[in-house]
Amino acid sequence: MRTVTKENITDVFAAYFGEDTDPRTREVLVAMARHLHDFAREVNLTHAEWRKGLSMLEHAGRITSPERNEFVLFSDVLGLSSLVDMMHSNPRATSSSVLGPFHVSNPPKLEIGGDMKRDFEGPVLCVEGQVRDLDGNPIPHAEIDIWQTAPNGLYSSQDPDQDIHSFHGLMTADDSGHFRFTTVRPVEYTVPSDGPVGELLDAAGRHPWRPSHLHYIIKAPGFISLVTEVFPDDDPYLDQDTVFGVRDDLVMSYVEKPASEFPDGMALSAQITDPFLYVKFDVILAPE
Amino acid sequence: MRTVTKENITDVFAAYFGEDTDPRTREVLVAMARHLHDFAREVNLTHAEWRKGLSMLEHAGRITSPERNEFVLFSDVLGLSSLVDMMHSNPRATSSSVLGPFHVSNPPKLEIGGDMKRDFEGPVLCVEGQVRDLDGNPIPHAEIDIWQTAPNGLYSSQDPDQDIHSFHGLMTADDSGHFRFTTVRPVEYTVPSDGPVGELLDAAGRHPWRPSHLHYIIKAPGFISLVTEVFPDDDPYLDQDTVFGVRDDLVMSYVEKPASEFPDGMALSAQITDPFLYVKFDVILAPE
Repeated sequence: MRTVTKENITDVFAAYFGEDTDPRTREVLVAMARHLHDFAREVNLTHAEWRKGLSMLEHAGRITSPERNEFVLFSDVLGLSSLVDMMHSNPRATSSSVLGPFHVSNPPKLEIGGDMKRDFEGPVLCVEGQVRDLDGNPIPHAEIDIWQTAPNGLYSSQDPDQDIHSFHGLMTADDSGHFRFTTVRPVEYTVPSDGPVGELLDAAGRHPWRPSHLHYIIKAPGFISLVTEVFPDDDPYLDQDTVFGVRDDLVMSYVEKPASEFPDGMALSAQITDPFLYVKFDVILAPE
Repeated sequence: MRTVTKENITDVFAAYFGEDTDPRTREVLVAMARHLHDFAREVNLTHAEWRKGLSMLEHAGRITSPERNEFVLFSDVLGLSSLVDMMHSNPRATSSSVLGPFHVSNPPKLEIGGDMKRDFEGPVLCVEGQVRDLDGNPIPHAEIDIWQTAPNGLYSSQDPDQDIHSFHGLMTADDSGHFRFTTVRPVEYTVPSDGPVGELLDAAGRHPWRPSHLHYIIKAPGFISLVTEVFPDDDPYLDQDTVFGVRDDLVMSYVEKPASEFPDGMALSAQITDPFLYVKFDVILAPE
């Protein structure tokens, strides 16, 4: 097929595939090329726009490092990361949400009832929950990896003034799947906007803010690992999370309670004299 | 709109745009996101496939440099570069074709009748042509920038044994738009396949070959600059150019002629004793 035209180029692309190509690879690549071609034709993409897109990818390549992945961030702000998460979520389980770039390896162990707030200023938040299966049965000893921003809006990996393990903890739930810990109320923050993703957000008249959240990875043998986030229902950015991570079942009330209702058996139990915030977050895992 | 779902995410994306956004920017970005989302839904893109795509982009970023642009190469082998070229070509003018990565800045001046073959082994190719407008009128003094592979299949920028200006020349057509030069017959070659583009070609069961060609940029005041290529009609890769650059009107016969028919007034006129190859390439430019 010598004559490639703007009408037949997707067919020519598909015809180039070898006979022994993996059918799934072929399906994905041909669909990708078809959507790429349809997009270009539909908007009559100009050479200048094509060059602009390429130069944004080149820029993303230059600033991507083990600490910052601008391609993941593009996927996040375009909604692709959340879409892939949602497509593979079990509707009866707790919704998954974006992993983001701020999780650190080898988080420190956090005992049940332990504290992540330490000496940081801000409201005490007490979190309790239970990990269960789709039928409501407790899942014992689930592994709960928790991380969040410090009160200054920065994750430990962004902030030279924090220890790398600050506001990161790895907890093992008890025999009945329960977990509880204290922390400081997390705050809203901006995704990095000094690169090409920031340029895209500016061009779209969008802000780079995410609503505040507690971030979790929850694992248990025989169940699908869950990456998720819990959002407070009074966050100003709840309706316009720049990475599309908010799901209805992940929005919770942070309830203010008097000190007298602070649970026993917590690392901070003896120190609480003022009202504190409380959120209950039960987690439903889907089987593998 | 707090509840982002896999069905409404494109609408949510569009709703995030600021009111004062440039309408064209909005059109392009919303169409891009819609095709990205439709693609992911259509193939039910898995997390593993999503991560694979991101890691290929990261790999492209790591190896892209001023000398090698893996993102442009992705665009080329996916057919996007050729599609954008074709969408903006005037159908009455000579077809445009991909620029590719091998053009060098500041090519050396090549006089009318000049030679680029020098001491390289291989068949002498004599090229003649005329630059005209859509009505057939000659365009005087058009600037013709010519480049091609050496007989070893390498462009000068890939080959430490060649001078950087080897097989590059900048000619100014005469008063009647005519140009002519000698060179060696260019050969087919492979695009770089040691990076993620090579991985994609392998996965698709595709080869990395391009048919041999003479590459041109032709410019004249008042006309749209033309990037194009001329292919011989007996090239084995004509029907499967890995970057989709072949157009019907760019495929020419290289005619073998006896030495007695070699044109006068060429730098090589006195030296030609064997049969040589001849191709006539007239160029039609569209007005700006």
